Amino acid sequence: MAHQEKETSGLEWRITLGDGSSKSLVPETGPISRIWMGLKGLMAGLVLKVWKFLNKAWDIGVDDPRKVIHCLKAGMALTIVSLVYFTRPLYEGVGGNAMWAVMTVVVVFENTVGATISKSLNRVIGTTLAGFLAFGVHWVASQSGQKFEPLIIGASVFLLATAATFSRFIPSVKARFDYGALIFILTFSLVAVSGYRVDKLFALAHQRISTIIIGTCLCILVTMFICPIWAGQELHALICRNMDKLAGSLDGCVEEYFDHNGELKDSDKHPDKKLLGYKCVLNSKTTEESMANFARLEPAHGRFNFKHPWQQYLKIGASMRSCAYSIEALNSCIDSENQAPEFIKKHMSNVCLKVSSNSSCVIKELAKTIKTLKKSSSIDFLVEEMSSAVQDLQNEIKSLSNLLSPAELLLPGSKETEKTTSTIHLLEVLPVVSLASLLIDISSRIQDIVKTVEELANVAEFKAEADDKAKQNQANINRIVPSQQNDDQQTMKALERV
Amino acid sequence: MAHQEKETSGLEWRITLGDGSSKSLVPETGPISRIWMGLKGLMAGLVLKVWKFLNKAWDIGVDDPRKVIHCLKAGMALTIVSLVYFTRPLYEGVGGNAMWAVMTVVVVFENTVGATISKSLNRVIGTTLAGFLAFGVHWVASQSGQKFEPLIIGASVFLLATAATFSRFIPSVKARFDYGALIFILTFSLVAVSGYRVDKLFALAHQRISTIIIGTCLCILVTMFICPIWAGQELHALICRNMDKLAGSLDGCVEEYFDHNGELKDSDKHPDKKLLGYKCVLNSKTTEESMANFARLEPAHGRFNFKHPWQQYLKIGASMRSCAYSIEALNSCIDSENQAPEFIKKHMSNVCLKVSSNSSCVIKELAKTIKTLKKSSSIDFLVEEMSSAVQDLQNEIKSLSNLLSPAELLLPGSKETEKTTSTIHLLEVLPVVSLASLLIDISSRIQDIVKTVEELANVAEFKAEADDKAKQNQANINRIVPSQQNDDQQTMKALERV
Repeated sequence: MAHQEKETSGLEWRITLGDGSSKSLVPETGPISRIWMGLKGLMAGLVLKVWKFLNKAWDIGVDDPRKVIHCLKAGMALTIVSLVYFTRPLYEGVGGNAMWAVMTVVVVFENTVGATISKSLNRVIGTTLAGFLAFGVHWVASQSGQKFEPLIIGASVFLLATAATFSRFIPSVKARFDYGALIFILTFSLVAVSGYRVDKLFALAHQRISTIIIGTCLCILVTMFICPIWAGQELHALICRNMDKLAGSLDGCVEEYFDHNGELKDSDKHPDKKLLGYKCVLNSKTTEESMANFARLEPAHGRFNFKHPWQQYLKIGASMRSCAYSIEALNSCIDSENQAPEFIKKHMSNVCLKVSSNSSCVIKELAKTIKTLKKSSSIDFLVEEMSSAVQDLQNEIKSLSNLLSPAELLLPGSKETEKTTSTIHLLEVLPVVSLASLLIDISSRIQDIVKTVEELANVAEFKAEADDKAKQNQANINRIVPSQQNDDQQTMKALERV
Repeated sequence: MAHQEKETSGLEWRITLGDGSSKSLVPETGPISRIWMGLKGLMAGLVLKVWKFLNKAWDIGVDDPRKVIHCLKAGMALTIVSLVYFTRPLYEGVGGNAMWAVMTVVVVFENTVGATISKSLNRVIGTTLAGFLAFGVHWVASQSGQKFEPLIIGASVFLLATAATFSRFIPSVKARFDYGALIFILTFSLVAVSGYRVDKLFALAHQRISTIIIGTCLCILVTMFICPIWAGQELHALICRNMDKLAGSLDGCVEEYFDHNGELKDSDKHPDKKLLGYKCVLNSKTTEESMANFARLEPAHGRFNFKHPWQQYLKIGASMRSCAYSIEALNSCIDSENQAPEFIKKHMSNVCLKVSSNSSCVIKELAKTIKTLKKSSSIDFLVEEMSSAVQDLQNEIKSLSNLLSPAELLLPGSKETEKTTSTIHLLEVLPVVSLASLLIDISSRIQDIVKTVEELANVAEFKAEADDKAKQNQANINRIVPSQQNDDQQTMKALERV
């Protein structure tokens, strides 16, 4: 094959020149073909990039179809508001200012109902306030003669723009009225300045405000009645999801730690995704805060009242984050170079796994409490279980002392030979012991989460679970903690008392 | 006094009625005075609230005067653009569309140069792109007869608005072109729809784009030439500041831990602020990312080139955050209920304090490296110092084994009485040991920070420190670690080799 190819490429065209000699024509790899090749490469790269981009977009859509629905809703709202242009009576009604309705829809339409309401309120209030103020300034300016008019208007624009811009730096204003302040500046300068030209200022303002109201009402109606996405519900679901992730990470990390050099190491489970769930908890602070801000504005929806204590969710989120920080430290134990000897790990693994599984049971139960909006009947019991597991862990650490050798025993001397096989150094125990201490820390942080969730249950007046459910739970608990047959009998009694 | 008061309040007015009897007049606490009192209370509350708000605003201004300067700049830009309205030739030049220039200034003017450039680019590109597309659609629609025209325009608005809204969900688009996508939808619908009414579409588009360019240019000029705030410089300063805070927290936490029951406990130092500095590091991810995004767009400024590797700062930030998570765990050791006995703490305090002070020295040196944009000549030495301190700590933990009692020795038996005074349980050592293990963990995370900073130094081609500076450093180091006279001689040699 190689020979044939060489022969083919050996073929050449020759041209006979005027003087009888012939000259070979080199196959053209000149500028044109090179540009062509370059272009082809560029095009291929571009197509690949676009393809990747589209693929990513497709994944996002498949991952959360509600995003696609939101986009369709946005398109619909915009198409509806465009009708204002096409229906003559409406268009005349707003005196050719239909543009403002379109602008309002584009700017105000948001993903969640709460965000849309918030932006709508901001826009309407900001516009109205600025409009009135601009009127006032305009009246004062017009009273003070032609010379001073631009001066007064210019000074007022400067002062109010400066003040409103500054207000956006104040955290409480920024959280709720950032957009309103922007609209305030915008409207004030437009009205104050354009008033110098347009005589029928009142009609203009009236039309602008009515178009804005048309736009905002349309947006609110569309977000609220067509596949609504409620900020409150989203916040609620986010907290539940994060709790499950936290529980998964905790379980996963401890399991991974004790299996690290064990039999499960190379099996095709995918630990990374589950293990790193806690990172979502670390990064969700901003989302939680904005959701809580929007949720306050939403009417009663689903199982939530208008006055549902959304702020309490932020406290729950904060306590979860505090727990996630410790899980991050726990996670770093897995990758640490210093690992305890295998037999110590084995020695400690059962009790550590018990603590982690009991802890994650508590978190899962809390997630269930929030999900169902019902007070859990078994949470006290589960917390007690966790505490007793922690107690066991502490006892186990105490008993590790038996295995530890005072250093002098290891000096070349009398008892060395008979002790070396069974004794170990503190430094060797250190990795497992610090893991254990992190687990103890985590369990105390979980109790903080329990407290914040209980507060929520009290403030939001969660109902107690039905009795038959309690029995079902009991069965679940028996399944979850199958190793402790003795304790379970106490459990039954405890549950009967509940 | 009490008697007198009682007498005064005992005083009463009596009225003689027609039938000779008299009736006491109860002092009027009727509805009017109650409303008055209520109003007074309300007003006082309102005044107090406004006063508090203004106080807070004042504090923000005093805390960062550049915010005030930004607001003045915004006011100025807006006043300048308003001049377009007052100067007749300019106003006529843009055909009465001066409004768009004002809007552009309000919306585009941002705190940092990079953010302003980013929004300007987004606005100009979004408007232009959407304008051209809308022209095309308009032409197609006008060719297809009066019946289909609104249909085609409506469908195109729906499709493009849906697509553009969806694009805002894609992270890479959201980070850079979120505002552009919004402006695209806005302009497209405005032009496509209003084209149905306004005949001189081309002139309109031309005017709109020129007003937008006037507005954006004005904004960019003002942000860039009057007390400019560069996103790059801000990012740079943020990273340096966070590093110092991290070092401060680390030092503070360990000192606080070992002083917890000690003499410094009730002194009037304010540990909280310094201790909690690491929280700033935890919460600055979003800020860092947006700053890095804006910094890419900024021209060369100060000591930074146009192609300064801002993305590397994000890596440094991430490694700092990872360190801060461990400091969070460290911080929880302080408040933990389980504290080691005082004598163990004393035993460990020196070596732990050495690790923490050496670690924080490394961080401070890194902060200096970034601050000065010069490769540090002493960083290798400092890292070695830190490692040797960690080694010492590990040795100290090993030696703790001497103090530990195997449990059997404590059983009522032979050696008990002579051992109990000097021996301790593993459980008692646990808090200090887990603190130590966290310190070891932190020192390894600091080495990650060192790596990321070194990468930055290489990519950004930092110059080496001058030799005389190295000597100065040496003097500093001698001051920082005064306790190790023996090591210092080695230090000298090491530094001479550097």
